[in-house]
Amino acid sequence: MAEKIRRPQAQTPKGFRDYFGAEVTERKAMLDKIAGVYHLYGFDPLETSAVETVEALGKFLPDVDRPNEGVFAWQDEDADWLALRYDLTAPLARVAAQYRNDLPSPYRRYAMGPVWRNEKPGPGRFRQFYQCDADTVGTASVAADAEICAMLSDALEIVGIPRGDYVVKVNNRKVLNGVMEVAGVLDPNDPTKFEAERGIVLRAIDKIDRLGDEGVRALLGEGRKDESGDFTKGAGLSAEQAEVVMGFTTARRDTGAATVARLRELVGGSTLGAEGVAELETIAELLDRQGYGPDRILLDPGVVRGLGYYTGPVFEAELTFEILDEKGRKRQFGSVAGGGRYDGLVKRFTGQDVPATGVSIGVDRLLAALRAKGRGMADTTGPVVVTVMDRERMADYMAMVGELRQAGIRAELYLGNPKNFGNQLKYADKRQSPVAVIQGGNEAEKGSVILKDLILGAKIAAGASLEEWKSRPAQVEISRADLVAEVRKMLS
Amino acid sequence: MAEKIRRPQAQTPKGFRDYFGAEVTERKAMLDKIAGVYHLYGFDPLETSAVETVEALGKFLPDVDRPNEGVFAWQDEDADWLALRYDLTAPLARVAAQYRNDLPSPYRRYAMGPVWRNEKPGPGRFRQFYQCDADTVGTASVAADAEICAMLSDALEIVGIPRGDYVVKVNNRKVLNGVMEVAGVLDPNDPTKFEAERGIVLRAIDKIDRLGDEGVRALLGEGRKDESGDFTKGAGLSAEQAEVVMGFTTARRDTGAATVARLRELVGGSTLGAEGVAELETIAELLDRQGYGPDRILLDPGVVRGLGYYTGPVFEAELTFEILDEKGRKRQFGSVAGGGRYDGLVKRFTGQDVPATGVSIGVDRLLAALRAKGRGMADTTGPVVVTVMDRERMADYMAMVGELRQAGIRAELYLGNPKNFGNQLKYADKRQSPVAVIQGGNEAEKGSVILKDLILGAKIAAGASLEEWKSRPAQVEISRADLVAEVRKMLS
Repeated sequence: MAEKIRRPQAQTPKGFRDYFGAEVTERKAMLDKIAGVYHLYGFDPLETSAVETVEALGKFLPDVDRPNEGVFAWQDEDADWLALRYDLTAPLARVAAQYRNDLPSPYRRYAMGPVWRNEKPGPGRFRQFYQCDADTVGTASVAADAEICAMLSDALEIVGIPRGDYVVKVNNRKVLNGVMEVAGVLDPNDPTKFEAERGIVLRAIDKIDRLGDEGVRALLGEGRKDESGDFTKGAGLSAEQAEVVMGFTTARRDTGAATVARLRELVGGSTLGAEGVAELETIAELLDRQGYGPDRILLDPGVVRGLGYYTGPVFEAELTFEILDEKGRKRQFGSVAGGGRYDGLVKRFTGQDVPATGVSIGVDRLLAALRAKGRGMADTTGPVVVTVMDRERMADYMAMVGELRQAGIRAELYLGNPKNFGNQLKYADKRQSPVAVIQGGNEAEKGSVILKDLILGAKIAAGASLEEWKSRPAQVEISRADLVAEVRKMLS
Repeated sequence: MAEKIRRPQAQTPKGFRDYFGAEVTERKAMLDKIAGVYHLYGFDPLETSAVETVEALGKFLPDVDRPNEGVFAWQDEDADWLALRYDLTAPLARVAAQYRNDLPSPYRRYAMGPVWRNEKPGPGRFRQFYQCDADTVGTASVAADAEICAMLSDALEIVGIPRGDYVVKVNNRKVLNGVMEVAGVLDPNDPTKFEAERGIVLRAIDKIDRLGDEGVRALLGEGRKDESGDFTKGAGLSAEQAEVVMGFTTARRDTGAATVARLRELVGGSTLGAEGVAELETIAELLDRQGYGPDRILLDPGVVRGLGYYTGPVFEAELTFEILDEKGRKRQFGSVAGGGRYDGLVKRFTGQDVPATGVSIGVDRLLAALRAKGRGMADTTGPVVVTVMDRERMADYMAMVGELRQAGIRAELYLGNPKNFGNQLKYADKRQSPVAVIQGGNEAEKGSVILKDLILGAKIAAGASLEEWKSRPAQVEISRADLVAEVRKMLS
């Protein structure tokens, strides 16, 4: 019966990816360590469903630069629109409103899991990726912000970023708004005025590392033409106004106290600005009393965070060591986590002000950083492979595998076609197996087993000399009764 | 400015749920232990994306009784249909085809994660739930099936199901097909004949625990009317044909060898049936040599598994201890895991036969079993709560929390409004806190701190007598310098 079947494509959907072996275990090991720190700080895990109603997610996406269509959504049978969550903050806001009578208040929670963005995929830019968040909902106290910063610092150190290789930078949106007031682009009596201008100012400052002072100045004024010739419209500030804002970005001083003093000058008579400066002062004091000095957590007015919804303290963790970029140039690794205080998210549901603050760790960026530092790598040693010389004796081989596993040694029976022994060793190689166990008819008669040392090949590939190879027997014949003990010896 | 705002509903979408605190950590602890067993057996983790093309998932759902619309799907901008995965097997088949030149062969992988079903939600029936699978792709050897059974047995024991409280039952579809051949509902020369009848037979046998012999006999014959009066059409077998099939369901004997002998009688001259019996014999022998006797893994012809795609050995893990059902009646806990050999899934993509076998553990069922046995419960002790008597001294309190955390003691600063001290103790209670730390102005002057023992309340609630309460001071005043040591003492 001749039939023509159209076969489905075996393809991950565009912008999605699969994670294999060590990619899974390395991420898991990192997240487990971070969860340990969050637990120590009294944060409880929360796992919301991946699916939310579009209504609960809200129409806004975290980055207002992007279109509203950034979620994967579909219509339910009941005509409700459902969507995959695009971050872990929107579901937290929904939970905080839904369970407000049952949850402790304040509510400290952490969440780790995938989020989905319906965006054009690009190199290193996926439509599903992990986030790792911790938030405190229900307190306006900046002690909550200080705690998040301390916890972030601890989390970075515990996963393997040594002190000195990172810094958590803290700023306050209220200070920036105070500066805007002084510069004349914020009217405390009508906060809706100049909103567009302030958005441009915010995003301009956020790009200072990439654009430099001149680039930011251009965006604060008429606008800026980039290398490709594209023109970005500026905020239209006068040179004097721009100067006030630029003064803010360079307000960082050697000590927290000096920075606070400088900021106090800059915000002048702005009530909001003065409040923000006082909050920063308190945060610095609280952290200092816990032993988190400026070598770990630092006041830095240069940090503004792009997101529109922050209302108070904002923070960002930067890795300060250098890596080579794709063009071979040295550059600082940069940001791996950020967050801040947001007060409007729960109010959407309940109408009541529910102050909240939190941090999100960029899981893939932090993993990349650990790999760049040669840390956080999983043990990629494969299992011991018991080969099959005689397929009539599968039970004998399976008994060997069973004994090894009973002894806690990771082991496999070769389950492919045993005819070609070379294929079995190729398989062991692909599995990064340290030891192959071989028993042919001769050995079975003698009650012996051959152990083949496969670690050496890997060692030589990793640069060990042939001398070492010579001093080490490539394979040994041992008594069957000593299988576990001898394999253990070879593995040690 | 008066405005009427329509607020979004703070609601989990229908059929979805959120997991809080211990619900998350208990599941994670269980899955971590299972992953440890899978790792020991040489299985590698695989995490595929939650989203697949509908084409790759295929139109069929695992249970053929259900409609095709059982997935959450939407159309991409490129007009591709995407969907959330409904199990972990379909993505594995896609991966095995997509990466067939890179993966080791055979490929042993495990996967743990949520899957989504677009079905009517019901009590205890959710539209997102966890699966935990292990599969071996690329080997026809029944040693792979035996290995999966052994691994399942180990996994159940490691999470806390003691030997004797579970049994892994093994059967073989080929044996059942041999019996069908003898009964005259399978024509080896035209396997498409009687397909509908065989489907009914399969599902009837699968329900024997619930319907009993008579119910199954009715479904094999003309059909069955249930308590509600609904009529289910039967397979239309004659009494003689039905008798042959019923003989199969009761073929289990005390030893594997006796069961094999009985099955050999039943399949008579069927080639396929004889092949299936020989496979069962080999599986029993392989397991026996590894020490997995019938107290753990058992041949049982009563197990058929509902899914249509199995082609050879099938297995099911049942918990044999009794629990009380919702009506207070004793019943066996029942199935918590199942699987078997399936050969068609990868072929869909490549056209090549790729034999595979695997098991899926019902994560929620197994968790429920552990809870029923009083095992697998997470430590639900909350954090030590440092209260706030004087909001001017937040830095002092935060320093205490910092010291406790430095010492590895889970601790929190109370971050709500500190005005009402009763609320702080209520909060500590809600957090299941073991110790509250209190320092008012008096204590601060003296350099002391008060520790309030909150464990006792919980202990009394759990049945401890008031005598114990009396022998134990409810609170102690200690030196501030001894904070960590004294808290540790109270916790021990």
